[in-house]
Amino acid sequence: MSLQSDVQAIRWQDNALYLLDQRILPHKVEYLKFTTAADTARAITDMVVRGAPAIGIAAAYGIALAAANDEEMALAYHELAMSRPTAVNLFWALEQMRNLDSADPTVLLNKAKEIHQQDIQANQQMGDYGAAMLSPESRIYTHCNAGALATGGYGTALGVIRSAHQNGKIKQVYAGETRPWLQGARLTAWELMQENIPVKLSTEGAAAQLFRAGDADWLIVGADRIAANGDVANKIGTYGLALLAKHHGLKVMVAAPTSTIDMNTACGEDINIEQRCASELTHYQQQAIAPEGCEAINPSFDITPAELIDVIATEKGLVLQPGNETVAMIMMK
Amino acid sequence: MSLQSDVQAIRWQDNALYLLDQRILPHKVEYLKFTTAADTARAITDMVVRGAPAIGIAAAYGIALAAANDEEMALAYHELAMSRPTAVNLFWALEQMRNLDSADPTVLLNKAKEIHQQDIQANQQMGDYGAAMLSPESRIYTHCNAGALATGGYGTALGVIRSAHQNGKIKQVYAGETRPWLQGARLTAWELMQENIPVKLSTEGAAAQLFRAGDADWLIVGADRIAANGDVANKIGTYGLALLAKHHGLKVMVAAPTSTIDMNTACGEDINIEQRCASELTHYQQQAIAPEGCEAINPSFDITPAELIDVIATEKGLVLQPGNETVAMIMMK
Repeated sequence: MSLQSDVQAIRWQDNALYLLDQRILPHKVEYLKFTTAADTARAITDMVVRGAPAIGIAAAYGIALAAANDEEMALAYHELAMSRPTAVNLFWALEQMRNLDSADPTVLLNKAKEIHQQDIQANQQMGDYGAAMLSPESRIYTHCNAGALATGGYGTALGVIRSAHQNGKIKQVYAGETRPWLQGARLTAWELMQENIPVKLSTEGAAAQLFRAGDADWLIVGADRIAANGDVANKIGTYGLALLAKHHGLKVMVAAPTSTIDMNTACGEDINIEQRCASELTHYQQQAIAPEGCEAINPSFDITPAELIDVIATEKGLVLQPGNETVAMIMMK
Repeated sequence: MSLQSDVQAIRWQDNALYLLDQRILPHKVEYLKFTTAADTARAITDMVVRGAPAIGIAAAYGIALAAANDEEMALAYHELAMSRPTAVNLFWALEQMRNLDSADPTVLLNKAKEIHQQDIQANQQMGDYGAAMLSPESRIYTHCNAGALATGGYGTALGVIRSAHQNGKIKQVYAGETRPWLQGARLTAWELMQENIPVKLSTEGAAAQLFRAGDADWLIVGADRIAANGDVANKIGTYGLALLAKHHGLKVMVAAPTSTIDMNTACGEDINIEQRCASELTHYQQQAIAPEGCEAINPSFDITPAELIDVIATEKGLVLQPGNETVAMIMMK
């Protein structure tokens, strides 16, 4: 019953991969065309496409492109695997492709399309599961963009919000603007406004007083990797928000497909956290914000311990009180 | 023994008030000239000058300008008092001027100069008191700009850091960039780099993981108003940072002159919190960040309860375990 969102980060058309350039949204809606695995890998590194499920799908199409072009397949797998380090969906999707043990362009393209379609379906299912947890008139704070733009379509955290909105349960969404990339301002606000879901932008610094005032019921976020014990790697800032949410009595939900769960990673400390360039803080587009030569720390993700999370919504169902046992149970479903 | 910083937000010269335009720092160092109280009030509202002590000083000079110009004094007091609502130093400084019960330009100008000079001395004294609390090799996280730019000179939180640096106690300062105005990136990083104090910029979202990693010992911030019970109004984001700091075992210091303490405000809930325009979030300079028509919440300050604060450093000494009694004691000194 959930409808797919109109927002599409990834399209396959005329034997080429088209990625919506998320670096210039919401001011320009522009698709870039990719025809090689190497260029696709670069697009992932440069964040033309971002969001854990979306980069997995893009990488799968990258492998299909490599096969179609007679590129060296081992190199294509390697370049795509090296494009970003934290989101496990990237490695999961490449593994799915590699398991076919094929270099047949049609076989690989069909698998990439299947991964793409399954992600959309998974989002809709987790959206419905997650939405069932919410009460009418819910006020949600979300961070970064875990929406249609971060996935094959529909979204993880925003999938839950879309499903809840269809059920008339959403009173207000607060989109944390999410520095340094401003995914909340540029992407989440844009996605929600396209569908008339009520959204207000907030600085990350304003979240604590909002929570204290009793103006939000749930913190709902996506994930880049979930460890076997339920620890969650997600966009930098998530850990602090989760701590502040719990302190003020909000519930915390992580929405992610099971392809985001990495049973080979025991706990959060084992997750490789990407450190990105200081210029993401010191410049806005080409404009300097900070003094020339200013140093910065810029970890792209942080780890939220499982004990701060009330529920992980997946396409297979809900993981209540995430931990080794409950996570293992959902993976066996 | 503390030296005044070279950075000066406020200068009186040739019978006019010169304010360093903090909206365009660090890219341009430009002073704007003001010759009337009305224009001075507008400069405070528009944040040409910002920081609680600095706007108090600017307002005092504004009164001196009104007297020199034969402006209507009651109107001048009114316009300046309405320029911003939260920082109590503004009202304190206007009260100091009004208590002279004079319209003599020389008398009023001398008082404004005295308020200005006393603020610098107070900063140096509180800097030395605050620095005495720090151990060698301290790693400090600071928020917004509570520096020379926010005061008559030297700074409150950055005054403590300056004094500690002179004593060889500073290993690293982390400047939270502080959305939406980016005072940390534009002003604090700039001030500290001018004096070769080691500073790294951080998004506010990265603070929690930094604290968790054990990479900071103190959170040190300024204040816009301190209530009689020790609750502190300061730049939006402070409350969340203080909670996260305490959770991870950091110490929390607020540095402020006693002119920031408002014995007529019983507790934090009684402080009027300024709500500023949504465009501060949706635009960077004139450039749109968010989709057109996007709504936003934009409270400029939040309240940090006294129980999260280990020490308030003032020019009269330290307030340990801030509360009604300890705050009253420092005011009687």
